[in-house]
Amino acid sequence: MARGKQIYEGKAKILYEGPEPGTLIQHFKDDATAFNNQKHAVLEGKGVLNNRISEFIMSGLERVGVPTHFIRRINMREQLIRHVEIIPLEVVVRNVAAGSIAKRLGLQEGDALPRSVVEFYYKDDKLGDPMVSEDHITAFNWASPQEIDDMMAYALRVNDYLSGLFAGAGIRLVDFKLEFGRQYEGEMVRLILADEISPDCCRLWDDKTGEIMDKDRFRKDLGGVVEGYREVARRLGVLRDDDK
Amino acid sequence: MARGKQIYEGKAKILYEGPEPGTLIQHFKDDATAFNNQKHAVLEGKGVLNNRISEFIMSGLERVGVPTHFIRRINMREQLIRHVEIIPLEVVVRNVAAGSIAKRLGLQEGDALPRSVVEFYYKDDKLGDPMVSEDHITAFNWASPQEIDDMMAYALRVNDYLSGLFAGAGIRLVDFKLEFGRQYEGEMVRLILADEISPDCCRLWDDKTGEIMDKDRFRKDLGGVVEGYREVARRLGVLRDDDK
Ligand SMILES: Nc1ncnc2c1ncn2[C@@H]1O[C@H](COP(=O)(O)OP(=O)(O)O)[C@@H](O)[C@H]1O
Ligand SMILES: Nc1ncnc2c1ncn2[C@@H]1O[C@H](COP(=O)(O)OP(=O)(O)O)[C@@H](O)[C@H]1O
Ligand SMILES: [Mg+2]
Ligand SMILES: [Mg+2]
Repeated sequence: MARGKQIYEGKAKILYEGPEPGTLIQHFKDDATAFNNQKHAVLEGKGVLNNRISEFIMSGLERVGVPTHFIRRINMREQLIRHVEIIPLEVVVRNVAAGSIAKRLGLQEGDALPRSVVEFYYKDDKLGDPMVSEDHITAFNWASPQEIDDMMAYALRVNDYLSGLFAGAGIRLVDFKLEFGRQYEGEMVRLILADEISPDCCRLWDDKTGEIMDKDRFRKDLGGVVEGYREVARRLGVLRDDDK
Repeated sequence: MARGKQIYEGKAKILYEGPEPGTLIQHFKDDATAFNNQKHAVLEGKGVLNNRISEFIMSGLERVGVPTHFIRRINMREQLIRHVEIIPLEVVVRNVAAGSIAKRLGLQEGDALPRSVVEFYYKDDKLGDPMVSEDHITAFNWASPQEIDDMMAYALRVNDYLSGLFAGAGIRLVDFKLEFGRQYEGEMVRLILADEISPDCCRLWDDKTGEIMDKDRFRKDLGGVVEGYREVARRLGVLRDDDK
């Protein structure tokens, strides 16, 4: 496949121009970073696993009617996606207290929340991705009220889907982060799910043992990071057939 | 546990008075019926599997905030549930054409539908559970417009959850049937999911082979009915620990 010139290199992925207008190629690197880039490592095999897991989840979501940027996987590390204008927000859904919400609200890690909550963070590494309110979002014009409503509704639908998916795999879905973007087609614009859904942006705990199976293994220096991701992929049946 | 007197015997389950007011014990029989009772068989082990599968799914739904009648499993064949006033409707969600919709609309079995569709059937064996419109439902006062909206919204949430759950198990969720009821508490009334969610009321096809894993094995005389249900339970991890 004709891969155009590189247009962006981020912490975990590289974007190239795609073969057709309106498309991009998303390349998954093995790099892992945390604490706003202060910690960095190369974890062999991570990119391949995230490419497969994100493919599996995004195509499942597409099938139940949640629009996504995913078109098709190209090879072990790359997938063809729809080019969008990224909304500069991280949309976080939490079912269980962990990470920043535990600190912020004085909760115990592992406490179930009264109900699933949606949070927004302004995507800016220099500022450390600060939490923002809906009023901040509209005041600074990062997204319209309608887009906020749509992101919240989609985020909760994704939570229902992922909760089912991981329940069957014996995994507790603690929280996850989504990104959305605007896809322009002529006069039309629609909001779709972008970026990736993988253990890099979810907290996943083994249902029985409580063992951490996500990027927190890296943040907390627990070792076995790629092994955790591989076990997630295995339980989802992503590695059932082959390993290409 | 003190089991009160039998209050209803249906085609697949028996209801007994529960230990406390507002509760019932739901007993899963091995009986299978189809075509409005014209076909009948006893399938050893079916009741035990449906009890476990319905427990697993209902408690997962409860965890993501869909209210259900399920309280806890009591033994191999019985579960404690909240007593509701059943709304006399079968709420069907379809993702893929199969069964009556294929016939009604001249679709090929296995065709993906343009989007997930919700249908209502009036629960009356004598009439053969006829399909009804929203206008029928309000005209005959089976449910209010608000209840119809709530049932549709819950049904689509259940579809998202189950689609994820079965995707991870390598199973295609073709369609399923729900029942809802009104739970009264003092002056309050709320709508909750009732009855069961099991291969008796879902169409489940193996993702790879297309093999039928649900009650259609019985309807179509394919044999291996309980084996199909057991494979569903196994893939969901319901039989992981023990077999009690
Ligand atoms: N469909 C898309 N179109 C355009 N940009 C996208 C799309 N999906 C994701 N992105 C952006 O591409 C980048 C992916 O690389 P990543 O390594 O995650 O970057 P970052 O370090 O900025 O988080 C992110 O900035 C993300 O917002
Ligand atoms: N929580 C509940 N409270 C009261 N009735 C219920 C509840 N859940 C299910 N039911 C009803 O109990 C019966 C279950 O037995 P079943 O064998 O399925 O009966 P049927 O042959 O009428 O479908 C059904 O009629 C169903 O509507
Ligand atoms: Mg990123
Ligand atoms: Mg019934």
